Amino acid sequence: MSANVPTDIVFSFTGFQVRGGKRGPHKDGWGIAFYEGKGVRVFLDVSPSSESEVARFVRRYPIKSTAVISHIRKASVGRVTLENTHPFVRELWGKYWVFAHNGRIPKVKKRALEFHRPVGATDSEHAFCWVLDRLREAFPTPPDHASAYWPLLGELFTDLSGHGTFNALLSEGECLYAFADTKLHWIQRKAPFSRARLLDEDVEVDFSKETTPKDRVAVIATTPLTVNETWNRCAKNELAVFAGGERAA
Amino acid sequence: MSANVPTDIVFSFTGFQVRGGKRGPHKDGWGIAFYEGKGVRVFLDVSPSSESEVARFVRRYPIKSTAVISHIRKASVGRVTLENTHPFVRELWGKYWVFAHNGRIPKVKKRALEFHRPVGATDSEHAFCWVLDRLREAFPTPPDHASAYWPLLGELFTDLSGHGTFNALLSEGECLYAFADTKLHWIQRKAPFSRARLLDEDVEVDFSKETTPKDRVAVIATTPLTVNETWNRCAKNELAVFAGGERAA
Repeated sequence: MSANVPTDIVFSFTGFQVRGGKRGPHKDGWGIAFYEGKGVRVFLDVSPSSESEVARFVRRYPIKSTAVISHIRKASVGRVTLENTHPFVRELWGKYWVFAHNGRIPKVKKRALEFHRPVGATDSEHAFCWVLDRLREAFPTPPDHASAYWPLLGELFTDLSGHGTFNALLSEGECLYAFADTKLHWIQRKAPFSRARLLDEDVEVDFSKETTPKDRVAVIATTPLTVNETWNRCAKNELAVFAGGERAA
Repeated sequence: MSANVPTDIVFSFTGFQVRGGKRGPHKDGWGIAFYEGKGVRVFLDVSPSSESEVARFVRRYPIKSTAVISHIRKASVGRVTLENTHPFVRELWGKYWVFAHNGRIPKVKKRALEFHRPVGATDSEHAFCWVLDRLREAFPTPPDHASAYWPLLGELFTDLSGHGTFNALLSEGECLYAFADTKLHWIQRKAPFSRARLLDEDVEVDFSKETTPKDRVAVIATTPLTVNETWNRCAKNELAVFAGGERAA
């Protein structure tokens, strides 16, 4: 999720949560990262999100944020342990970078790493470290504006998707990057707001009652979360950039 | 806390939590990091720990860990924001490093940094990044055993304490490092276990009913947490190393 004002993600998370072990095969842990200013708050759990005490807490205690990344895991590479649970966080250029990956990149762990190293055993975390190494190499000092590295991000992600399956979400707090390989959908909600109904749970929300006319919220997911809205499907190898609830590139 | 088997920290946290805003001046946020295998689970909040919803959750949902670092903050350098909240986490050598600091180091932010940069504005996070930079510089590749960098850690911490006040806790998951400048106390609990009574709250626990004879737990705190046990006071510039609930150096 990307938003222009701090927004809670309770509605989307309600639908997403049940996909972790209840309505989907992604039962091997889950995680969510909320940016708050420059800081980031991360909740991880190795329990399926549909049964997780931490997930129940996150739902009950609506944290407001302008950028959120969440992931439910189906373990392919790496055991079901906390260190293998997405999203992963690293610091680069004085910013926290958050990354989550859907898919598999079989040989990525053979790629050499210099500065950033994986703690766990997943291909995903290795790919994340490789991306950060390339960014650091290209920009030894922090670039003035994020758009300076958007083309490089697109190249790196396209490279990775060419060696496996790589649907991914990344953020440095400023922008939210969504990269589509096999599947990725997004929607922007803004005034006039209307009602939305979850696909996975019998829950409906009337956003017009919870928003102001200036609010902008973009929600990105591999599979649409609602049934009565029209989600945009990203093309293969499309890098969608969101900032403040708007599609920026 | 350092322990040889995954142990919950509910008892100690109960006394510690009320010091954040209720029985002490450290009302400007709090945080706690639990290692679980190689992974680390971090909870941060800008609310005083005595009033924090997240703290209530941590108390109700006892997380078991072999290494825990917690901190309650009295803001001196840097506003009360999530990115200024301890403990801080960074990756080095494929391990998550967790750091919390009590005190002030007025001019530390003038020290140049190369690889690790602070996200927030505290002197503490800057000092942490400086320590990690020095470790990385001395050991470009991961050393075989943690004891290889214990002498360097002692030197770096002594340097920092010479430029301000520096009571600190650090861990890479393997060992827990406690450095004493003005105040630091520790206690080891092992068989035969007995009763302990909190200093800050009217709570008592009989550890003999909650432990096995092989359990070893070390608890380190600036000020002792219990009234009926004898805590060891660290000497100035003493680096105490704990591993698996034992004092290792």
